[in-house]
Amino acid sequence: MDAMPATPFRPRSSYPAWTTITTRWHDNDHYGHVNNVVYYSWFDTAVNGWLIANGLLDLHDGDRIGLVVASGCDYAAALAFPQAVEIGVAVARIGTSSVTYHLGVFAEGAEDAAAQGHFTHVYVTGAERKAAPLPEAWRTALSAIAAR
Amino acid sequence: MDAMPATPFRPRSSYPAWTTITTRWHDNDHYGHVNNVVYYSWFDTAVNGWLIANGLLDLHDGDRIGLVVASGCDYAAALAFPQAVEIGVAVARIGTSSVTYHLGVFAEGAEDAAAQGHFTHVYVTGAERKAAPLPEAWRTALSAIAAR
Amino acid sequence: MDAMPATPFRPRSSYPAWTTITTRWHDNDHYGHVNNVVYYSWFDTAVNGWLIANGLLDLHDGDRIGLVVASGCDYAAALAFPQAVEIGVAVARIGTSSVTYHLGVFAEGAEDAAAQGHFTHVYVTGAERKAAPLPEAWRTALSAIAAR
Amino acid sequence: MDAMPATPFRPRSSYPAWTTITTRWHDNDHYGHVNNVVYYSWFDTAVNGWLIANGLLDLHDGDRIGLVVASGCDYAAALAFPQAVEIGVAVARIGTSSVTYHLGVFAEGAEDAAAQGHFTHVYVTGAERKAAPLPEAWRTALSAIAAR
Repeated sequence: MDAMPATPFRPRSSYPAWTTITTRWHDNDHYGHVNNVVYYSWFDTAVNGWLIANGLLDLHDGDRIGLVVASGCDYAAALAFPQAVEIGVAVARIGTSSVTYHLGVFAEGAEDAAAQGHFTHVYVTGAERKAAPLPEAWRTALSAIAAR
Repeated sequence: MDAMPATPFRPRSSYPAWTTITTRWHDNDHYGHVNNVVYYSWFDTAVNGWLIANGLLDLHDGDRIGLVVASGCDYAAALAFPQAVEIGVAVARIGTSSVTYHLGVFAEGAEDAAAQGHFTHVYVTGAERKAAPLPEAWRTALSAIAAR
Repeated sequence: MDAMPATPFRPRSSYPAWTTITTRWHDNDHYGHVNNVVYYSWFDTAVNGWLIANGLLDLHDGDRIGLVVASGCDYAAALAFPQAVEIGVAVARIGTSSVTYHLGVFAEGAEDAAAQGHFTHVYVTGAERKAAPLPEAWRTALSAIAAR
Repeated sequence: MDAMPATPFRPRSSYPAWTTITTRWHDNDHYGHVNNVVYYSWFDTAVNGWLIANGLLDLHDGDRIGLVVASGCDYAAALAFPQAVEIGVAVARIGTSSVTYHLGVFAEGAEDAAAQGHFTHVYVTGAERKAAPLPEAWRTALSAIAAR
């Protein structure tokens, strides 16, 4: 893709947390590269995976879940199966009950991001899924991966 | 989802073109509503479907394809299989070789949008996929669904 | 695809229940036709959609869900976005707690099936998800769409 | 899932080739485990990935591609994001232009298969995608991972 973004993408050093994701045959679309939609599945995977790995999100016994209220992505270079990708995660903003993450998509080992995005979760509790203030343990853990 | 957007979403009347999409069992995620990623697959489907239906994009004999360089979505209300969705499409901006679309996601028959997004295609030609100015026929057709 | 199945596929008349599904841009894979995996998402959608529409499966207040224990598909002809597909559903066998469905995939309006498959659900109840005998209401409804 | 298959699944030792795949947030469906459809995307990924890694399938300069004409899967135990899976691949039968693969799905490090499947590719050449006899290099490479 030759449509370079006006501003350079954030560097690897701005992301404190990382997840490696293997691509799949059908991540590629008709044009032979990873479909733009798939990047968002990587965002979801990287953020929720980090929350689970750090003991915050518990799908079975937890008292809160994250609902996505906004997301976006800018794309600079194509990716394709079978290459693996590395997703960088950083916390850009912690609100009362919401968190905005910055995400960077890198081909495995690549210096420059192929894409970068953002993703805002509102954390809700209960059967009626009402936004609820983030507990202190969440704030502490999230602050540890603040965007640099 | 109780995190209402600060600004009301665009109304149905702002979208000149429409596509109805049936939802699928696995559009729903663990939380029992359509996963945020799926909305972007609807954007891709609505825009490319409109381009094909209007004789602009031809996957077999055409000379140009659209690559996504930016997208984004704001979510206000949950959707769930088995309900169908209606996607409104409007052209927000026509550049030399790029087009930005506005998209609205509505539960079938609903007055208010459940989500709204944007999506920018750069149209490229040739094996090396270089951005190329949009032909007049494209400009005319795209102008006919300009955002109202 | 020129690999025709040894036995002709089941005709439209063998399927008592039908669902129309719209295809999506990224149902197509690198080769420009609907990826083989996507057909299984249509099976899931057609069967669960039928169960919901007929008041058997209730994702919010129901006491049983269906888990897939076996599935399969034979493919004869390619399909591609943006065409819609019609999925025929028939009940091939009702066991104590399981049901095997036959499925036929037809391009919209086509006489011959593009693919046909089977799909076995075991119906389970409770938090431990134990197989449980099908209630009489289920047997009656399922018998009404027995394979012809 | 308590519906155990009548026959034990093939052991790890029957699969000569292996691929590790990371799961994704939305592999899980409403019921909180990996949706049955996703397993087929792993089959596609493991087989095509092996063909590419072994220099047989070349998506850009190759002269033949594989089209799926049949597939199937039996499921014994649930899997769920965020666990990774290991896919075993074995060649069960080499025909003139077709190959049937056996596939085993194992939770990372698990002794017993969670699911097992089969998958038949017909290899075709040219714009009209006609079945063509497999070259000797393909037969040699495929024979090296014959089912044990």
